[in-house]
Amino acid sequence: MAKPGIPKGTRDFSPAEVYKRQYIFSTIRKNFEKFGYQPIETPSFENSETLMGKYGEEGDRLIFKILNSGDKVKKADLKSLEEGNLAKFSNSLSEKALRYDLTVPFARFVVQHQNNLEFPFKRYQIQPVWRADNPQKGRFREFYQCDADVVGSKSLWQEIELVQLYDSVFADLKLEGVTIKINNRKILSGIAEVIGASDKLIDFTVALDKLDKMGEDGVKSEMLAKGISAEAIQKVQPLFSFSGNLNEKIEQLSILLSASEEGKKGVEELQFICENVEKLGLKSATIDLDVTLARGLNYYTGAIFEVSAPKNIAMGSIGGGGRYDDLTGIFGLKNMSGVGISFGLDRIYLVLEELSLFPETVTVGTKALFFNFGDAEAFYAMKTISMLRDLDIPVEMFPDKAKMDKQFKHAEKKNIPFAIMAGNSEIAEGKFTVKNLLSGEKETVDFNGLEQLLKNI
Amino acid sequence: MAKPGIPKGTRDFSPAEVYKRQYIFSTIRKNFEKFGYQPIETPSFENSETLMGKYGEEGDRLIFKILNSGDKVKKADLKSLEEGNLAKFSNSLSEKALRYDLTVPFARFVVQHQNNLEFPFKRYQIQPVWRADNPQKGRFREFYQCDADVVGSKSLWQEIELVQLYDSVFADLKLEGVTIKINNRKILSGIAEVIGASDKLIDFTVALDKLDKMGEDGVKSEMLAKGISAEAIQKVQPLFSFSGNLNEKIEQLSILLSASEEGKKGVEELQFICENVEKLGLKSATIDLDVTLARGLNYYTGAIFEVSAPKNIAMGSIGGGGRYDDLTGIFGLKNMSGVGISFGLDRIYLVLEELSLFPETVTVGTKALFFNFGDAEAFYAMKTISMLRDLDIPVEMFPDKAKMDKQFKHAEKKNIPFAIMAGNSEIAEGKFTVKNLLSGEKETVDFNGLEQLLKNI
Repeated sequence: MAKPGIPKGTRDFSPAEVYKRQYIFSTIRKNFEKFGYQPIETPSFENSETLMGKYGEEGDRLIFKILNSGDKVKKADLKSLEEGNLAKFSNSLSEKALRYDLTVPFARFVVQHQNNLEFPFKRYQIQPVWRADNPQKGRFREFYQCDADVVGSKSLWQEIELVQLYDSVFADLKLEGVTIKINNRKILSGIAEVIGASDKLIDFTVALDKLDKMGEDGVKSEMLAKGISAEAIQKVQPLFSFSGNLNEKIEQLSILLSASEEGKKGVEELQFICENVEKLGLKSATIDLDVTLARGLNYYTGAIFEVSAPKNIAMGSIGGGGRYDDLTGIFGLKNMSGVGISFGLDRIYLVLEELSLFPETVTVGTKALFFNFGDAEAFYAMKTISMLRDLDIPVEMFPDKAKMDKQFKHAEKKNIPFAIMAGNSEIAEGKFTVKNLLSGEKETVDFNGLEQLLKNI
Repeated sequence: MAKPGIPKGTRDFSPAEVYKRQYIFSTIRKNFEKFGYQPIETPSFENSETLMGKYGEEGDRLIFKILNSGDKVKKADLKSLEEGNLAKFSNSLSEKALRYDLTVPFARFVVQHQNNLEFPFKRYQIQPVWRADNPQKGRFREFYQCDADVVGSKSLWQEIELVQLYDSVFADLKLEGVTIKINNRKILSGIAEVIGASDKLIDFTVALDKLDKMGEDGVKSEMLAKGISAEAIQKVQPLFSFSGNLNEKIEQLSILLSASEEGKKGVEELQFICENVEKLGLKSATIDLDVTLARGLNYYTGAIFEVSAPKNIAMGSIGGGGRYDDLTGIFGLKNMSGVGISFGLDRIYLVLEELSLFPETVTVGTKALFFNFGDAEAFYAMKTISMLRDLDIPVEMFPDKAKMDKQFKHAEKKNIPFAIMAGNSEIAEGKFTVKNLLSGEKETVDFNGLEQLLKNI
């Protein structure tokens, strides 16, 4: 029999890994709730029509489809297979698909339950999503998304609060040096207007983003090569020496975009958000304006966020989000503005691991292993164990009578700090011999002494 | 556009429902960890060969298969489709399937990672599973399983501990009147031996289970109708007047099965478990012997558990489990005895709901809504909100400037207990007007007063 494995792009998680992931999840969840976001959950699979066509052609291709059960496969559209229309053939075999992200299911949820929801509706959702992507380092076919969104209000205080939420989570995780980059879709539109080439906007921002690496001349050559005119480049010359603090940058943008109504609106929004974030203060993160930030360009309509790991860590963004003015329009509910952010669990995990920021206590299982010397001793141990567990102290007993050596090794391998031994003489006196497996120290205590010892670690 | 929906047999969960489910999950998880079980997680989908053939023919039919992506569907086995072999046709289109339970993935995990695991290995797993079952009341196509298992030891202390674990969880959930029914596969084998008809064992236990409803004569007629001889029935006559306390029942069984080596072994095991459970004491549940208990007969080899809800609640079992001597044999690792239990989340939820046992605090979101009277007031509110959140007090602000009435309604609908208002005069004095939305009381306090007020709810 071949040794069993798991599908590529998926993962098993060991206890230590689950504990560490739970540490991140619970830190995020605690902050979501502190900020007034409430949890919802949606099914792992949705009706295909809910998902298909929402993520572009590439997205459709990456959606995992569930094969119809039983007799339904008889409806296979063999004609499409013959004609090489594999997508149509696949669709004839499937009515359901695994969710691809949490945003579309959330939009579906809001529309479906709109009459039972109180708006503005602040929801968070921490669930896995699936993508038939080519797996590579750090990219999986099954991974968790952690999203907080609010729908039903255009108030910019929500953007301010979401920046604080990022800051609060990373402060709690003790991850210092995080930068929350902010931009605004309307500023990008303004730039497009000024350079007179909205179809070249992405080429423009991609090139501008390389300023550090390529220098001004290099970037300009790339822009020219992409068909952006010298005249247009001239008009946005200030972006090549874009510097100073946040306020100074905003000031420069304001002048640059003075001819664009939409651009001016974007600058105003940005200014309101940044000013208030700075006046309210951040605990650990830094906020910075990045005019090249354009993620999900066709999707966001206002603020755009992206979070960078500390500069000394080679890692892409560890979070992102923004405002989308028509979240639920795809399901027929108009005028529902939404704004939200997402945390990249897997990357945050790697960053915390690299910086050794997981608290040591996170992976500790039980606090003591009671040795097993036979049924009478085991009974004495189990009586004590029950009392300790009732005091919320996690402890366990080696299930079998075994050599001391074997039981010591078991405790060590499981990273259990104390070994507790009670034979005839201890039992007669109601005592316990306790060995600290780190220091090697041994002492004999009564139940109260044992309780104190275990409580204090 | 049609109003969007979700696939049949699946569910959306509202914030109140998620909070209540999390309350059950976290109670179970806390106890799992207190008893020394450690979490693992496995992928939502496994390679098909890992799952297929492990749950019988019916099980295979109920496994959700994932359609191969892209070009791979070209390999559709059209000949099988023509021949009406739909299972084979389906298999030609799919290499992966959603997990059907947590036990088979756990066995796969143990075999795959055997060299990195310390045995006995105590693991818990709380994850969803999927079954293409016909949905009906209380039966879903996606639902969570909560399992604790230990592999690598035959010690009966583990069975004892698992009974305590059930008791501890239900005591924490304040669910009184739970019965933990116990039986042993070897006792069932013993009975089969005594009646001389092992192929009729299930018919026998099913009929015997109706003793309360049908009376002795009714049950005997059913047994005769099923082909169990009068002579055989005579041999197990004591089972028809099986009564007394646990020890007395065990005594009767011991006599009844004295001719069967395996039966005697079963009685011995049962006796050891029950005796120690009773001597150690249970906090809230009752343990009882049920010789008709035969769940998963082909699977369990030793103890069998099933938990019944309190008698006044019409609900099937809310948990079950047992010992299986060859858990990992299906993946080629022999001699790995395992024993485990499972909690039925959805049914436990319904029971707690019916008995109003969810703590009221479970569904409370934030503790206060700060009203929004414009940007200056909102800034003052946000400053205060940040300070409260830093003290771990969840509060929120209405994002838009709006009429008082609208903001009051928002707080009420969201079940938020306090409304906090600060206009010009409060701001000038550094104060807050607080309205208790339950009592209608209003008072004006400074920040410390506010903190005290909100901390105390």
